[in-house]
Amino acid sequence: MKLWAKGYPIDKEVEDYVVGDGYLLDQALVKYDCRASIAHAEMLGRIGILSPAEVKALVKCLNEITGLDAKGKFKITKEQEDCHTAIENYLTGKLGKAGKKIHTARSRNDQVQAALRLYYKDELKNTISLTLRLIASLRRFTNKYGRIKIPGYTHTRKAMPSSVGLWAGALIESLDGDIGLLNFAYKLNDQSPLGTGAGYGLPIMVDRAFVAKKLGFARVQNNPIYVQNSRGKFESTIVHALSQVMLDLDRVSRDLIIFSMPEFGYYIIPRELTTGSSIMPQKKNPDVLELVRANYHVVNAYGAMIQGIVGSVPSGYNADVMLTKAPAMRSFEITERSISIMALLFSKLKVDEEASKRAMSDELYATAKVYDLVKKGVPFRDAYKRISSKYKGK
Amino acid sequence: MKLWAKGYPIDKEVEDYVVGDGYLLDQALVKYDCRASIAHAEMLGRIGILSPAEVKALVKCLNEITGLDAKGKFKITKEQEDCHTAIENYLTGKLGKAGKKIHTARSRNDQVQAALRLYYKDELKNTISLTLRLIASLRRFTNKYGRIKIPGYTHTRKAMPSSVGLWAGALIESLDGDIGLLNFAYKLNDQSPLGTGAGYGLPIMVDRAFVAKKLGFARVQNNPIYVQNSRGKFESTIVHALSQVMLDLDRVSRDLIIFSMPEFGYYIIPRELTTGSSIMPQKKNPDVLELVRANYHVVNAYGAMIQGIVGSVPSGYNADVMLTKAPAMRSFEITERSISIMALLFSKLKVDEEASKRAMSDELYATAKVYDLVKKGVPFRDAYKRISSKYKGK
Amino acid sequence: MKLWAKGYPIDKEVEDYVVGDGYLLDQALVKYDCRASIAHAEMLGRIGILSPAEVKALVKCLNEITGLDAKGKFKITKEQEDCHTAIENYLTGKLGKAGKKIHTARSRNDQVQAALRLYYKDELKNTISLTLRLIASLRRFTNKYGRIKIPGYTHTRKAMPSSVGLWAGALIESLDGDIGLLNFAYKLNDQSPLGTGAGYGLPIMVDRAFVAKKLGFARVQNNPIYVQNSRGKFESTIVHALSQVMLDLDRVSRDLIIFSMPEFGYYIIPRELTTGSSIMPQKKNPDVLELVRANYHVVNAYGAMIQGIVGSVPSGYNADVMLTKAPAMRSFEITERSISIMALLFSKLKVDEEASKRAMSDELYATAKVYDLVKKGVPFRDAYKRISSKYKGK
Amino acid sequence: MKLWAKGYPIDKEVEDYVVGDGYLLDQALVKYDCRASIAHAEMLGRIGILSPAEVKALVKCLNEITGLDAKGKFKITKEQEDCHTAIENYLTGKLGKAGKKIHTARSRNDQVQAALRLYYKDELKNTISLTLRLIASLRRFTNKYGRIKIPGYTHTRKAMPSSVGLWAGALIESLDGDIGLLNFAYKLNDQSPLGTGAGYGLPIMVDRAFVAKKLGFARVQNNPIYVQNSRGKFESTIVHALSQVMLDLDRVSRDLIIFSMPEFGYYIIPRELTTGSSIMPQKKNPDVLELVRANYHVVNAYGAMIQGIVGSVPSGYNADVMLTKAPAMRSFEITERSISIMALLFSKLKVDEEASKRAMSDELYATAKVYDLVKKGVPFRDAYKRISSKYKGK
Repeated sequence: MKLWAKGYPIDKEVEDYVVGDGYLLDQALVKYDCRASIAHAEMLGRIGILSPAEVKALVKCLNEITGLDAKGKFKITKEQEDCHTAIENYLTGKLGKAGKKIHTARSRNDQVQAALRLYYKDELKNTISLTLRLIASLRRFTNKYGRIKIPGYTHTRKAMPSSVGLWAGALIESLDGDIGLLNFAYKLNDQSPLGTGAGYGLPIMVDRAFVAKKLGFARVQNNPIYVQNSRGKFESTIVHALSQVMLDLDRVSRDLIIFSMPEFGYYIIPRELTTGSSIMPQKKNPDVLELVRANYHVVNAYGAMIQGIVGSVPSGYNADVMLTKAPAMRSFEITERSISIMALLFSKLKVDEEASKRAMSDELYATAKVYDLVKKGVPFRDAYKRISSKYKGK
Repeated sequence: MKLWAKGYPIDKEVEDYVVGDGYLLDQALVKYDCRASIAHAEMLGRIGILSPAEVKALVKCLNEITGLDAKGKFKITKEQEDCHTAIENYLTGKLGKAGKKIHTARSRNDQVQAALRLYYKDELKNTISLTLRLIASLRRFTNKYGRIKIPGYTHTRKAMPSSVGLWAGALIESLDGDIGLLNFAYKLNDQSPLGTGAGYGLPIMVDRAFVAKKLGFARVQNNPIYVQNSRGKFESTIVHALSQVMLDLDRVSRDLIIFSMPEFGYYIIPRELTTGSSIMPQKKNPDVLELVRANYHVVNAYGAMIQGIVGSVPSGYNADVMLTKAPAMRSFEITERSISIMALLFSKLKVDEEASKRAMSDELYATAKVYDLVKKGVPFRDAYKRISSKYKGK
Repeated sequence: MKLWAKGYPIDKEVEDYVVGDGYLLDQALVKYDCRASIAHAEMLGRIGILSPAEVKALVKCLNEITGLDAKGKFKITKEQEDCHTAIENYLTGKLGKAGKKIHTARSRNDQVQAALRLYYKDELKNTISLTLRLIASLRRFTNKYGRIKIPGYTHTRKAMPSSVGLWAGALIESLDGDIGLLNFAYKLNDQSPLGTGAGYGLPIMVDRAFVAKKLGFARVQNNPIYVQNSRGKFESTIVHALSQVMLDLDRVSRDLIIFSMPEFGYYIIPRELTTGSSIMPQKKNPDVLELVRANYHVVNAYGAMIQGIVGSVPSGYNADVMLTKAPAMRSFEITERSISIMALLFSKLKVDEEASKRAMSDELYATAKVYDLVKKGVPFRDAYKRISSKYKGK
Repeated sequence: MKLWAKGYPIDKEVEDYVVGDGYLLDQALVKYDCRASIAHAEMLGRIGILSPAEVKALVKCLNEITGLDAKGKFKITKEQEDCHTAIENYLTGKLGKAGKKIHTARSRNDQVQAALRLYYKDELKNTISLTLRLIASLRRFTNKYGRIKIPGYTHTRKAMPSSVGLWAGALIESLDGDIGLLNFAYKLNDQSPLGTGAGYGLPIMVDRAFVAKKLGFARVQNNPIYVQNSRGKFESTIVHALSQVMLDLDRVSRDLIIFSMPEFGYYIIPRELTTGSSIMPQKKNPDVLELVRANYHVVNAYGAMIQGIVGSVPSGYNADVMLTKAPAMRSFEITERSISIMALLFSKLKVDEEASKRAMSDELYATAKVYDLVKKGVPFRDAYKRISSKYKGK
């Protein structure tokens, strides 16, 4: 039964439309809602809404749910709408009165944000740790191949001498910058929304600091309207941070797709990381890199989705924000898997030293020739022109 | 087994990353791939690749798959990657040699497009028919309430007298315009890709016109590179067309959310179409309209997703385009369900004639007063100024 | 003076914010507003609001403005806000009473749409004609080089034999499809908004059909609310159509950037179409192609801008839509210039037959070898596997 | 003359297409390029490329340009392409040999980034200071009106009692969070790119730390490829930060547009901040708020523009990134003006205490009634149901 059931039936098609696949996404939130509900129950104990026995029973029952969920045995049904209803129904079914009290001093509006933020915190930590693993993989790759010279390109045209180490180092430094942004998103998100109710506070005194501390939030998010206005807004910054990691992976995938073409051959992608064609027997395709490339745009679009949804509503909770959950969750999944697959790739990627050497052609040294003249005292622009005249082409 | 398996294993994580949830989306394509495969098999019979007995056996077996699929009994596994592999494997398992011949003169690149286009054609037809149903619902609503006067607003400020009929009529005409765009998308998509192989034709003569006719395509899409370059491009126009319908629904939802507020009360959304709050017992929330509103932005972002993916790759097939399937399919689902729910809503929506009447306040007639003077010969701009001076405000 | 001035001053910063650079964009609309105003004046003559002498004077004066504008001598000032005010002020200044009557039976809301649609119609026609010119350029290019064989790529890997003609032909057919969409956008836009006032009709009888015919509109757009709701909506479809042309140019630019690298050398971009580097004297960079590529994303984002703006407001005119003018106008400018530059490029682009020939390596014929076996009766999948085993790689 | 001129003419249309309106945008960068060039010249003095006299002359001349530019007397022509060329040409024209040496040990690729980052740093500081000014304006507004009770809404339906102070406080806290993000963007951007040349370092030893310190950069950005890959990437995070401020302003504008409708009347926008209609004499429209609302979507789309452009190219400099300059610059302009106008608005906005009081109707206290029962020991869910039954509606 829905938490807000009023004794008359809701149109079935309306119910379906409103719930959508939200109840499926919510499966990942069960454990976080249980954690938040435990802290909430303990707080309700402290302010005298729940007896110690009730708190104990609720905590036990919530841990039970977490255990069931870990084994895939706590299933949210479409009728229940979301994990919050499923959990409250379970508690009421098992404990009666104590279950009916758990929702005191909270609303689904602050409750869902608590669960989401705990989830985001875990996912952000995971994303950072995967990024560090990728950096480690890049370092090992650089140790092995870093000194090999390859052409540096601008405008997809040979420019100046570069090296495998310089190229991989750019990715390492860029990822390092991304970690800074992921950490910023983490901190932004590390505020407890609990105790703000539906967005206008509660007609009862609560201990917000206790709950925040219990759940490991760095601080309490004060203004209740701000809490509701943060829904989607924080997600927007989170997904922006993810998109920056994806941009780095996109960039390096593009480089690898081109320079692992046999026509260049600087990089060799081992065959077990490639896929084939249903018709052309010779093909070894870099699908992985192509999909990483495409997934940058997917994550970007999820960011735009969130930005579009939140930028068209007034203050306070609006049902629209429910639809920011899926793009945020999917963006995490895509980014984490993409980082992981790139770490794998760099652990197996080879550099063909011979092919790279062959590619180090004369024009890459044209700038060096300019500087030979500069070092002899020729003003740069004159030196440039002198060398330039040899490359007029047609 | 994959169609392109070469006798060495592919890394499991790579496989997972490449397949993603594509195999789940492909479930909707099984029947279309069977239809296309039947036409293809018959063509292979005509050009002598298959014997009449082989054609017969394949057609029977493909119909069998369609039947199983209709009962939910033809499941694509992750290992099979997609419906095309699942189907070919089934055919080969059942028929041996004939199954091994079915992929003659095609590639997955043209095959997947054939299935997708047949699917898009059906979905576009369905979208159009739902839109017509919504228009019919609007007409019934207008017949009932159309003559009731309500204020017309510009800048969310009372402007001039309007009516329920004028307002609903705007939606009808706009949807009618959208049907034009949906029809354009239908025609664009109504071209047979089969017979173009991987994007560079086939080393064998085929009868493309026969296949196209058999499948009900209006024409053959000639250039094989263009066929591949169309993947994602056609989807982009399809999703654009869907987004235009969603824009209309977004607009009308915004109107209804505001003007069904008890503070206005022009429109009454029956309680069975509203939802409640977990904490505030009095609430009757227009979640449906809020979600329609948000879903416009969702469909838009799916359009941007497709445009991003296709706009970053060279000509010919690239694995990136696989990721245009999900946003296209989800956009159909969202749009169709949104149209349907709005048809339901308008069948139940009420207009409060009294409340509307009360809202018809004096300032709505200020322009009429200007025209009273105009009719007496006062130049418009002078008449405007004369009336305007009464509305200086502060 | 503003048309709506009420005798008290408006805050200067507010004025600046509201006008923005709209008055600069409006310069391009002067001639269209004059055309629409002439038709409107003639209609006012027919319904007796203006005397024949007034009509004559107004028409003469409006033609005068058009003439001044053509010579760059009719400048809209920031204080005037827009071309409509500048023109009405000019008429009133010159003609007195007749000028004060010109705004009878219209609002800026329908007036601006009339001017914009006339402008869009011209620009769409121009875009189509430029696209036809590009197709002609491509045909000449194909006549010259079309028969030259080049490798066909999928996944940026050699796939099967292709040719310059096949490649250029794909672009021709795709552009042809785009013209269909541009024509659709043209027709959608080819409706007269005049006579619908601010969005709720007029307190006076007008002859909408006369004005529509006079201005060359294919039909009258009936519902006045729909007219206002179309602002931005029509622009969205127009910019979508432009983005499809840009996508084609993006695609072909990507091909050219890669395959004109000296490492491939299939295509030669003449030096006068390339740019250089401030530091590297040897560089000949394909900036033009890179900017066409980037401009696809620019036009896309302008489309998203419009979709975002229009998808967050209720029915009827809202000031938000003013900001859809710039992205629409800029999208036309970018697209038209991009088409034109590509026509120029294809008129000068060369194909290096020798380099292309060298690139036609063995693996391109692997599929042909499969079909040699197929023609001897080997089932396709077996033939595929047999040939495939030779390409296992490592 | 262009820096890379090679003695043969470039096609005029190509030149136009490549330069676009970049030379106009570059006017804002002149002073930053001069500052960076001064630091660069001093460094060249330290490493012996320039004599002390040459350094002195160059510094003097660069200060001269800055002075001219401040007076609007240093105009970049289209032929010069950009500020860098205009400045180098000026120096060479005035100083001869010393001017020809200024480009030693740099490329336009690192030079343009230096100027842009100095510009972004100033603009970010300005944005932060404007945001603080808006917060101050909000605090004054709150001091005056904060205690007034207004209805709190969820789903655009009356929910629970709120107050003007709670509402304005949400904006203050949200802006405070935005300042955190702006500061992050500032730090990300606060790295010196100078000394990395075209993206692959320089064939000469330079003192990067000296230049960085001289220009006030917090640190040197090490990897030269990363420097180039940062172009557009840093802009993406900057524009994301701006979009978060705009989102706050969008939200509060939506609230104000609705609740300043005479039908609610909680807020009164003074007439000097409103605009009128060309046809309806009574209108006082909140154009400013509508445009702030629309401008959120404009800034968002500029963010998407940048993300699209940078996500489709390989590593190293590509001309595409030139097109990230305009969206970044325009986003600053829009955001800064929007913050400023909102500070003005809040300094003049009034709250109608009477109207607000009238709106505090019974149903806003339904939740309080539930808690009255809760305080008497009724379990929350039972209390909810008891009160809920009184609000069944129809």
